[in-house]
Amino acid sequence: MTDTASETNLLQPGQLIARGVCRLLASHDFWCLEEFVPARGLRMDVMAIGPKGELWCVECKSSRADFMSDTKWQGYLDYCDRFFWAVDPEFPVDLLPAQSGLILADAWGGEILRYPDVSRLAGARRKAMTLKLARDTARRLQALRDPAGPSALL
Amino acid sequence: MTDTASETNLLQPGQLIARGVCRLLASHDFWCLEEFVPARGLRMDVMAIGPKGELWCVECKSSRADFMSDTKWQGYLDYCDRFFWAVDPEFPVDLLPAQSGLILADAWGGEILRYPDVSRLAGARRKAMTLKLARDTARRLQALRDPAGPSALL
Repeated sequence: MTDTASETNLLQPGQLIARGVCRLLASHDFWCLEEFVPARGLRMDVMAIGPKGELWCVECKSSRADFMSDTKWQGYLDYCDRFFWAVDPEFPVDLLPAQSGLILADAWGGEILRYPDVSRLAGARRKAMTLKLARDTARRLQALRDPAGPSALL
Repeated sequence: MTDTASETNLLQPGQLIARGVCRLLASHDFWCLEEFVPARGLRMDVMAIGPKGELWCVECKSSRADFMSDTKWQGYLDYCDRFFWAVDPEFPVDLLPAQSGLILADAWGGEILRYPDVSRLAGARRKAMTLKLARDTARRLQALRDPAGPSALL
């Protein structure tokens, strides 16, 4: 196991859930970018893209307070085909809107408990989001692979 | 400088050129994935995606022999809007097809010497390539960020 305690200690509670979500979604052949910005002022915890270009947004909540203070999540609905909450097993899930998807997750993985209905993006929005996801992900990858290069300075 | 000699020593000559190409293209707001597989049996050294979704393929050649033994490059033309060769300054550039683009590069950066004509991809192909680029890049990023996760096992 390379899952050291020191590694998980560096992450915030919401980031630990996000890591588990990314592992879970990978097993569904959905690939993720964390902290994706679909439009100015919005920052999704996780955006995932599926084999047919499906775009799923997952917001990770580590506590009741974390959820109650989120005033932006409805804005994300316009930028994804499905919207999920991801919470740890202690979270009071009755707080969450029943029409949203629901994932239980911790730092090591998770499970999809409820699928939301699909609200398919229009073609132009999907195209723009897929392009932005491709470019943002490539920039992020380049910054990690070549930390002395220009992408790491952005 | 974090560009240590030990870092560059780990890369093959073609990979060093590719690193410089990625730095160069980043300065043009094109973001890259190395060793992109557009279709079975094809592996581009660098695929780059621009702000309007432009797809540029760059093949990196470190020597005459490296170029002469490449039997696949014409297959890449069907998967990009522009095709470039990237070579180091010692390369005999007269060998290269005049209609291709030309980049001079080393491990630290480069310069675009010649733009090829644009041969725009059809919409369906562009859509498929952009989706594959987004997903492959996200999978690669996840493997780097979370080496204990499932993506690192692929």
